[in-house]
Amino acid sequence: MTRTIETIAGIRAFVSACRQRGKTVGFVPTMGAFHEGHLSLMREARRRHDAVIVSIFVNPLQFSAGEDFDRYPRRIDQDIRMANSEGVDILFAPSVAEMYPKGFDSHVDQTDLPSKLCGAFRPGHFRGVMTIVTKLFNIVKPHAAYFGQKDYQQYLILRRSVTDLNLDVDVRVLPTVREDDGLAMSSRNLYLGPKQRKDATCLHRALKRAEDLVASGESSAAKVAGEMKRLIHRVKGTRVEYVEIVNSDTLEPVKEIKGKTLIALAVRIGKARLIDNALV
Amino acid sequence: MTRTIETIAGIRAFVSACRQRGKTVGFVPTMGAFHEGHLSLMREARRRHDAVIVSIFVNPLQFSAGEDFDRYPRRIDQDIRMANSEGVDILFAPSVAEMYPKGFDSHVDQTDLPSKLCGAFRPGHFRGVMTIVTKLFNIVKPHAAYFGQKDYQQYLILRRSVTDLNLDVDVRVLPTVREDDGLAMSSRNLYLGPKQRKDATCLHRALKRAEDLVASGESSAAKVAGEMKRLIHRVKGTRVEYVEIVNSDTLEPVKEIKGKTLIALAVRIGKARLIDNALV
Repeated sequence: MTRTIETIAGIRAFVSACRQRGKTVGFVPTMGAFHEGHLSLMREARRRHDAVIVSIFVNPLQFSAGEDFDRYPRRIDQDIRMANSEGVDILFAPSVAEMYPKGFDSHVDQTDLPSKLCGAFRPGHFRGVMTIVTKLFNIVKPHAAYFGQKDYQQYLILRRSVTDLNLDVDVRVLPTVREDDGLAMSSRNLYLGPKQRKDATCLHRALKRAEDLVASGESSAAKVAGEMKRLIHRVKGTRVEYVEIVNSDTLEPVKEIKGKTLIALAVRIGKARLIDNALV
Repeated sequence: MTRTIETIAGIRAFVSACRQRGKTVGFVPTMGAFHEGHLSLMREARRRHDAVIVSIFVNPLQFSAGEDFDRYPRRIDQDIRMANSEGVDILFAPSVAEMYPKGFDSHVDQTDLPSKLCGAFRPGHFRGVMTIVTKLFNIVKPHAAYFGQKDYQQYLILRRSVTDLNLDVDVRVLPTVREDDGLAMSSRNLYLGPKQRKDATCLHRALKRAEDLVASGESSAAKVAGEMKRLIHRVKGTRVEYVEIVNSDTLEPVKEIKGKTLIALAVRIGKARLIDNALV
């Protein structure tokens, strides 16, 4: 049975007992409202480690004013059942006061990667992500932590902060899990009405089109991005935040598609801000 | 014999062996050029822990442009001998490239405490301190770390960042060690010529005068600070950077001296920037 722990002290006690017995700990940090994407991370952690800890914490620090912190889906009972089905040992579900007690004032940040892609539209977002993940890593002390490729920029930034701050955690990324029609799974898909849900496939279709173009020899980033935008703009009610073709290590825009390249996009549909990406 | 280790991997191996055998690790992070202040920290660590690690790293990140990074005293051979005399197990002396390899871009910062006292005159200084100490704590994984009260603001900030980021380290502060004439020991005292060395006692004399005033019932921060400045200004060639009387937890200026109060000052004499403080 999955045990739910709400205190930092409780997690420390569990982890310390694991480590003393030589067990490895796999960790999946989440904001809850689990979907198959989260479950795929739990399964990989379960396969690779003696103990699996999943955290659920809707982190206020990574939401800007006016973003969806208040309406972000919270469904802890369903999450507990799903974690249990995946053989998760511990669900760490701390309160905001437990993570950010009175007087809290420290943060972790970077200057380069967080200024790019989503970071340009969500000031302070990655600073909030880095801060909470650093805290969680220091509490859970996992051997490895698992993230989804949908949040590729987040993965890259966390890999950087973990390296830079000498955290002894292996940061791993697993493929984006998709609905049958290609939509990347996301807790924020719950914001979509039925018509919007159909429209939302345009992100995946644009990426597919980009991959086809590249496969057929197109190497101009401008042409590929242009075609993607054209395809998305054909769907009424979509607002493209960005379509970018960048080096997959530096996130610097490229003109010519060659070597490790990331195609990433963010599109607003109704109340939802959706992101997706492909490595080509 | 004290062993010198220059790599992060070497320290990790040593510490991991300690922890596996249930030994406690005490840590003294320094910039080298040891004096009795450093040695008092090593002695306390030696008294309290099974293993003692001292780091020497002149951290470029905590020096602003135009500060004394280049001329900061480096005397590693003498330091090794002194650490050896104190029974230090490991001297961790990494290169700049070992601590900040190519691509390094993360930092730890706070908004409140680093803006006060020394922070107002040394932009980025405490950010650099927090970043390197977070790195060192993650590498050394000590049970406790030891700092001197001369750098009281640094201690307060590190206590905050360790709490906020859930680092499992006990941050301890030990009393300032002084020369016979009261001058607080500091590696930067090496910058002082013979005349300046004498003049430098004005910091301690000003603090003593403040303590006497408070002991005799004076509670006006303005009056005490005024008297301290008057006393220092009488010494030719001194430049007061600040004399402040603040709450010793928040570093907020107080008008009335009551409860836990810190009297802190920074004075420039020749090429040296000297600091000192007293808790009253």
